[in-house]
Amino acid sequence: MAQDLVIGIDVGGQTTKCGIVDARGTVLAQTVIRSDNHEEAAPFIAELAEALNRIIAEAKAEGRIRGIGVGAPNGNYYTGTIENAPNLKWGHTGKVEFAKMLSEQMNGIPVSLTNDANAAAVGEMTYGAARGMKNFIMITLGTGVGSGIVINGEVVYGHDGFAGELGHTCAVRHNGRQCGCGKHGCLETYCSAIGVARTAREWLEMSDEPSELRSLDKITSKDVYDAAKDGDQLALKIFDFTGRILGEKLADFIEFSSPEAIVLFGGLARSKEFLTEPILKAMNENVLPLWRDKIKLVYSQLKESDAAILGASALAWEL
Amino acid sequence: MAQDLVIGIDVGGQTTKCGIVDARGTVLAQTVIRSDNHEEAAPFIAELAEALNRIIAEAKAEGRIRGIGVGAPNGNYYTGTIENAPNLKWGHTGKVEFAKMLSEQMNGIPVSLTNDANAAAVGEMTYGAARGMKNFIMITLGTGVGSGIVINGEVVYGHDGFAGELGHTCAVRHNGRQCGCGKHGCLETYCSAIGVARTAREWLEMSDEPSELRSLDKITSKDVYDAAKDGDQLALKIFDFTGRILGEKLADFIEFSSPEAIVLFGGLARSKEFLTEPILKAMNENVLPLWRDKIKLVYSQLKESDAAILGASALAWEL
Repeated sequence: MAQDLVIGIDVGGQTTKCGIVDARGTVLAQTVIRSDNHEEAAPFIAELAEALNRIIAEAKAEGRIRGIGVGAPNGNYYTGTIENAPNLKWGHTGKVEFAKMLSEQMNGIPVSLTNDANAAAVGEMTYGAARGMKNFIMITLGTGVGSGIVINGEVVYGHDGFAGELGHTCAVRHNGRQCGCGKHGCLETYCSAIGVARTAREWLEMSDEPSELRSLDKITSKDVYDAAKDGDQLALKIFDFTGRILGEKLADFIEFSSPEAIVLFGGLARSKEFLTEPILKAMNENVLPLWRDKIKLVYSQLKESDAAILGASALAWEL
Repeated sequence: MAQDLVIGIDVGGQTTKCGIVDARGTVLAQTVIRSDNHEEAAPFIAELAEALNRIIAEAKAEGRIRGIGVGAPNGNYYTGTIENAPNLKWGHTGKVEFAKMLSEQMNGIPVSLTNDANAAAVGEMTYGAARGMKNFIMITLGTGVGSGIVINGEVVYGHDGFAGELGHTCAVRHNGRQCGCGKHGCLETYCSAIGVARTAREWLEMSDEPSELRSLDKITSKDVYDAAKDGDQLALKIFDFTGRILGEKLADFIEFSSPEAIVLFGGLARSKEFLTEPILKAMNENVLPLWRDKIKLVYSQLKESDAAILGASALAWEL
């Protein structure tokens, strides 16, 4: 029987989504299991394998799985391991031989693994907004800021498998915000969902400017979006600020690898109506004249509910 | 007869150096012509071809030239053209079909062309400090700051052939120095030979600190080096400042492509006794913990007088 299908797995801190995908990017069957039911990797992977076998049976896909692609925090493409992933209960210390262990549980089906942002980039190149592009940079604006860099049609993994940590490049050199990584001023402390909420809290405290955000107990980036929709001036300024910082750093990235496009993805990218203009303005002001107004800014075209599975599954076509 | 030799050509604003090189990186014959004797590219290229034929005869290399590699400002690898190169008398406007024109003059010997920093990176990978490395970033600290980025053993050219403009990434976001490119705060306004001299002039004006540099009419980076050698405190602080700014940006570059090493080259790199420590300190303080104290900082191993020819010649082996 032809091996015409792949499996995509997106490992998150709380849940792990998996699905069976065909060459057109249709998700034929999918399921979700909890990521945090086990203290050790082995029983988690055993439970994951069971779940996979269930959807394989459901999709009548026995013998048709060509490979399995996994996107996971701190996933290393070269070694197939997950190393020191702070958000994974069974992976926060040491090294988990994830790809090897899963492949053994799945009767030797090959497994390829990378971090979630790299998986998203491969997904976008295979099924989404970057189809046909050989040089682009994917920026995922979620809880943090992730990135997947594609050069000559290949994801950049670097000498050790960990390249593409653009969320931790320096956006604010002096008095920058403390980042979870231990450094200060990282891009992700400003341009993630959490960064936007942090800007809102700081600005509300620093000024008396009226804003509907003042009435809220706990502010999320979604609240800032809703306020901006209502024409709230402070909320609009928060998006201007966020977009400008991101645009300034994108200019640096363009000077590095001269991509055809920047692809934005993730929860915060849903605020594109407020982000696009300040991003483009700052990006074009800060880039060398030869690239001014020439590099595209595009948004993910993958259906959000399927994107994580599709991204991971795309890795498996390369196996 | 075996095609066992290549030609390397380094096109500069004033002079153009060319040499015949064997597979071990020995320069068998070389010559220099002026770059600025002609207003148009065609007569310059005709004169260059004559010079090449002279050294081919001298080295008894007729029929043995496998290819010609050219490093030139604004050289585009994809198109073989030199575009809007401000320092070249015959190339400061429009597009010169350099590779095509030279190949025609040389009886069809294939010609490969790129910018000088990319050529230096290929040279270092072929004959120098980066031999055996597949992932490194070459930074040339000369009049300006150039860069050549190697990922998976290949120079990064980007979607348009112009990638690797790290000298124009932003080092100082607010009130940064005006750069020749029209932007402000570019790395090269601080970390080039000209940048070091500029720092010296600014600091001498801003303070009364005693320094032997005060007695000089026109300060060059070499003067600052000599003063530092004499233990001049202001000169030492200038190198600390320069090294710190470079180290901070190198951290960003490491987070992009996770290179095995950074290779420094060029006139200013000769001040390594004063630069290495502040560069490493700032680089390691600003990079994610996973790379701290792990990325090598090395200096070019090519003999300076041959380096430009060797770099360009290395391109030709890939033809």
